[in-house]
Amino acid sequence: MGWIDTLKFQEDGLIPVIAQDEKTGEVLMFAFANREALEHTIQTGNVTYWSRSRKKLWKKGEESGNVQKLKGLYTDCDKDVVLVKIEQVGGAACHTGKKSCFFNELSGDNWKEVGVQVFDPEKVYGHK
Amino acid sequence: MGWIDTLKFQEDGLIPVIAQDEKTGEVLMFAFANREALEHTIQTGNVTYWSRSRKKLWKKGEESGNVQKLKGLYTDCDKDVVLVKIEQVGGAACHTGKKSCFFNELSGDNWKEVGVQVFDPEKVYGHK
Repeated sequence: MGWIDTLKFQEDGLIPVIAQDEKTGEVLMFAFANREALEHTIQTGNVTYWSRSRKKLWKKGEESGNVQKLKGLYTDCDKDVVLVKIEQVGGAACHTGKKSCFFNELSGDNWKEVGVQVFDPEKVYGHK
Repeated sequence: MGWIDTLKFQEDGLIPVIAQDEKTGEVLMFAFANREALEHTIQTGNVTYWSRSRKKLWKKGEESGNVQKLKGLYTDCDKDVVLVKIEQVGGAACHTGKKSCFFNELSGDNWKEVGVQVFDPEKVYGHK
């Protein structure tokens, strides 16, 4: 996959990935990928990340079934960030059950919770 | 600004920032901010980043006039990424003169240039 060689990964071998709803344009989440995760994304058609906390390939939706179907893959002028346009199966990208992870809106000096609650995380994961 | 204290900055004091067109939802660019950049953003209403290459505050649009007017500021479930919804004055967020920095679309094994050319960078900056 020659295109992966043209990307500029960070020193730790990771590259930032922004996931955007293909249809609505909503920014759903932000995570990192390594080379293997990008290869897996293309091979399977499901967006795959690298989990920095678990230090392993993160096949998004593996547990919940809420996979992210890849609809388009982009990079920026510096080729050091990836943007994926996706179809979010199940409707929620966030482990909190919200549609988007970006559900905290600055209001004055405080965060106001906004966004759409799609599922109850306790029911899907058995924990919050 | 107490809200800034609730954010989780990286070890280097930076936090990733995604800039999105408030009206169209298009993802325009990705960069980093530090505490000072976020304070400057709120104080001026113009999105300000930290330039990692120049190691200084990056008042976006200072040179070109293409400032980014802040319309909304969000953070994610982990509070370690910022999303700004903006009005891009001049119509182009990218130093290449493109509307969005994410103008490379993966097509087979190659990057295909897509996106809208708004200005000629040679005319605006005197260089490419």
